[in-house]
Amino acid sequence: MAKPTKDAAAGRPEARLPKGFRDIEAAEIRQSQDMLAKIRAVYERYGFEPLETPAFEYTDALGKFLPDSDRPNEGVFSLLDEDDSERGLPSGANASERGLPSGADASERGLPSGASKNWLSLRYDLTAPLARYVAQNVQSLPKPFRRYATGSVFRNEKPGPGRYRQFTQFDADTVGAESVAADAEMTMLAADTLEALGIARGDYVIKMNNRKVLDGVLELAGVDPASPSETHRRLTVLRAMDKFDKFGIEGVALLLGKGRKDESGDFTAGAGLAAGAIEKITSFLAASSGDRAGALDRVTPIIRGNARAEEGMAELAAITSLVRGTGYEAKRIAFDPSVVRGLDYYTGPVFEAELLFEVKNEDGQTVRFGSVGGGGRYDDLVARFTGERVPATGFSIGVSRLQAALNALGVKKESPAAGPVVVLVMDKTELAQYQQLTQRLRAAGIRAEMYLGSSGMKAQMKYADKRSSPVAVIQGSDERAKGEVTLKDLVEGAKAAAAIKNNKEWKEARPAQLSVPEDKMVDAVREILNRHL
Amino acid sequence: MAKPTKDAAAGRPEARLPKGFRDIEAAEIRQSQDMLAKIRAVYERYGFEPLETPAFEYTDALGKFLPDSDRPNEGVFSLLDEDDSERGLPSGANASERGLPSGADASERGLPSGASKNWLSLRYDLTAPLARYVAQNVQSLPKPFRRYATGSVFRNEKPGPGRYRQFTQFDADTVGAESVAADAEMTMLAADTLEALGIARGDYVIKMNNRKVLDGVLELAGVDPASPSETHRRLTVLRAMDKFDKFGIEGVALLLGKGRKDESGDFTAGAGLAAGAIEKITSFLAASSGDRAGALDRVTPIIRGNARAEEGMAELAAITSLVRGTGYEAKRIAFDPSVVRGLDYYTGPVFEAELLFEVKNEDGQTVRFGSVGGGGRYDDLVARFTGERVPATGFSIGVSRLQAALNALGVKKESPAAGPVVVLVMDKTELAQYQQLTQRLRAAGIRAEMYLGSSGMKAQMKYADKRSSPVAVIQGSDERAKGEVTLKDLVEGAKAAAAIKNNKEWKEARPAQLSVPEDKMVDAVREILNRHL
Repeated sequence: MAKPTKDAAAGRPEARLPKGFRDIEAAEIRQSQDMLAKIRAVYERYGFEPLETPAFEYTDALGKFLPDSDRPNEGVFSLLDEDDSERGLPSGANASERGLPSGADASERGLPSGASKNWLSLRYDLTAPLARYVAQNVQSLPKPFRRYATGSVFRNEKPGPGRYRQFTQFDADTVGAESVAADAEMTMLAADTLEALGIARGDYVIKMNNRKVLDGVLELAGVDPASPSETHRRLTVLRAMDKFDKFGIEGVALLLGKGRKDESGDFTAGAGLAAGAIEKITSFLAASSGDRAGALDRVTPIIRGNARAEEGMAELAAITSLVRGTGYEAKRIAFDPSVVRGLDYYTGPVFEAELLFEVKNEDGQTVRFGSVGGGGRYDDLVARFTGERVPATGFSIGVSRLQAALNALGVKKESPAAGPVVVLVMDKTELAQYQQLTQRLRAAGIRAEMYLGSSGMKAQMKYADKRSSPVAVIQGSDERAKGEVTLKDLVEGAKAAAAIKNNKEWKEARPAQLSVPEDKMVDAVREILNRHL
Repeated sequence: MAKPTKDAAAGRPEARLPKGFRDIEAAEIRQSQDMLAKIRAVYERYGFEPLETPAFEYTDALGKFLPDSDRPNEGVFSLLDEDDSERGLPSGANASERGLPSGADASERGLPSGASKNWLSLRYDLTAPLARYVAQNVQSLPKPFRRYATGSVFRNEKPGPGRYRQFTQFDADTVGAESVAADAEMTMLAADTLEALGIARGDYVIKMNNRKVLDGVLELAGVDPASPSETHRRLTVLRAMDKFDKFGIEGVALLLGKGRKDESGDFTAGAGLAAGAIEKITSFLAASSGDRAGALDRVTPIIRGNARAEEGMAELAAITSLVRGTGYEAKRIAFDPSVVRGLDYYTGPVFEAELLFEVKNEDGQTVRFGSVGGGGRYDDLVARFTGERVPATGFSIGVSRLQAALNALGVKKESPAAGPVVVLVMDKTELAQYQQLTQRLRAAGIRAEMYLGSSGMKAQMKYADKRSSPVAVIQGSDERAKGEVTLKDLVEGAKAAAAIKNNKEWKEARPAQLSVPEDKMVDAVREILNRHL
């Protein structure tokens, strides 16, 4: 990374992307705009209203809910708000003081720890800002409040293949609804959205579980989910359960017990549970194998007698009954005991949208595509601010991940927008004339541009080619004298060029080329464009 | 700001927006989506391709070009990239070390000064990231490279009324085009975009000037624009000229001389120029008064003999000739000597899109709406990285500012999207039935939702009202037994309620309400919706 280059040696900055960030180019943008429009249409149809919150929140308002609990603050991008009048620094204070005061105590100078009004963080999801918004505007909002939101979120994590530090989410949330019908609706929304994007029924499943059930199973295994001293162990257990898809029963059993060594020899410490406790958890997970419709029944005897788990199972049964009653079968929406979900703020049902078709992973292995979104119920997130419980549930799509899935599936992409018609510049003293021709095409709604570089005819044709231009408009001095333009059909021309054998034949045939009077140019160009639609 | 509240006293974070940031709600989002789509359509028609760069850039790659040069680093949000492997900190290092090492030298601990690979900054515009992108990908790009981009940019400035620290820009740029035809195109693009948004011809003007002309005038006034020791004075002069609209000739003359005291008694130090120099500059500015078409002629004698200014004037004349030749008159695109533009990277023609109609400002005074966008030529920005000059020009729209303008103008907004059809929940044991009705409406493409709160009939009708719902679907046990639903036309109902005098009359008439068999529900709802389109 960033090794000294010729440029750096000359005292120039190096042109490079920050690690873990990326540029997105035209074809991908057009595709994702199409995706976002389709997702938006489904969310709107479900009655959600758009809301945008800013990229920044006060750090204490965001809270610490990121999965990797060993270093929760590292997951976010934070900075001290220099402009905060409460800091009491006059605007004329010198630069280093206004940055991070060297006299501040270590926790202030280092990473934000605990509530500090001066720290800003970039949002790591769209849910925590929603909770802040609702707490702030609770009086004026309809109850329930149903909103959708899309935008960039930021994670200050180690980047990896396909894993970026800025990415796009698309969320829908219902705030102020206690009813499991709100959760049921989230699962149907997820299914409808995937289908609207062209993912076939059978190629996806919306899996659900319930944090109450998971906590109950932990209790049955002797881990008290409510005890602060057990927090670390609880997370280790949940993380182990989350690895069921990857490592299977045996791998999870190792992670629940003494620990597990992977192929490379790296050792992951285990939760240190006893054999009986491990057996309880793995038998629960094992119920995820077999027909999806039967999973509820298979789990029922395992969690019997634990009130928390039974309450959670009753909720899942109610959701299941609602979605089945509305025609969503088990192959589309089903209970799956192995779903955990990383974020720490969930309190009830959790969901995961999984794509079932297979792709090759980086190591060349064939694997299921996996998760493209998820969500769940978070009844305590607004109460963090107000002290009053506001039940809420939501679903979030990982847009880039889903876009990768659509590409892997080969779901019909919009044909890449044809490039612009290029008006060549044959005579630099006649720029106004070429500009007029260009403007005439634009005024007729045709995508067009005059060549703006300084190269000759050949380079201009090459440029038109690189821009995927469908038509070149050419007017030399002879044609100008006659009030004509020559149109080259570049799509047809490319085909003809492939077929015609020699230069002489080419020159005689002059395929895909015609002369028209200037005032017929727009119609003639449109005719060629329509031919290639 | 942020004084301790009841919540804070209870150890809870306060639900508040960071200073200078804002939430954007549904109606404004729908309007701005419509605007963005219209702007995009014009930019596409001009042949530009979309590009997205990330929110972050390395600080040294962004450069320091923000207007307020007294504190250039304060204008950006910056943070040290903890994840940079070059820092050589092991991933297990403790938190304070990983934040900002206390042993680091002051410049590293304070604000980024000079090139440092470890500092990230949020982009303050879309041009600096474009220059980085072009420098990085110059080999593979079409030449010229024409791209548009839209997204949030961030300024770490003191917020004010209507002035936020995060806002949206929409830019088009042509990179690799020396020709003034590229600049001319930017001014036409700007004019076409404003008209596409509904701003009438005559309500706007695209004003242009040229940095070369400004530098020439400075030379004529005895300020050497190229001398580093004169940098501060040059900026003071340019800033004074930029105030011509606000303070007029007399005010500018004070700012060019000893300084100016405003109404509140605050004193702004002047550039300290001599009377002759001041006269040179003010006579140049004065040429902006009078008919727009004649401004070029009025300035010509003033700058005569200065090679730099004459070169700039020749470029402006060439642009003028191109746009006039394409039918854009002086009332749409014209030279204006008072245009300066704040950003420091401009090297040639600069543009400003100004709205001419009048609005009341915060103090109740009637003023012109003013600038909603601008741009110009920046031939050295790519060379910062590569050492090789890549001529470039662009135009940027301030989307929120333009949206405020459209609202002030009362440009016909899209009618606010009607709220969703609300299916009331009359019997909580029949949720699956209500969900089915809802899903049936959605499947037919009708925006609909089941009420998800826990309140009774009256609150549900109030909710439907708050959501601007056009229709409520009601099914009590009697209706369910008969396989019917009742539809309430809430738009018609509201009108009738206004007309009907008493409760008895209302109950007898039951206006805007009908019963239909369940399987006719979708058609009947659609009929009501069509009636209110």
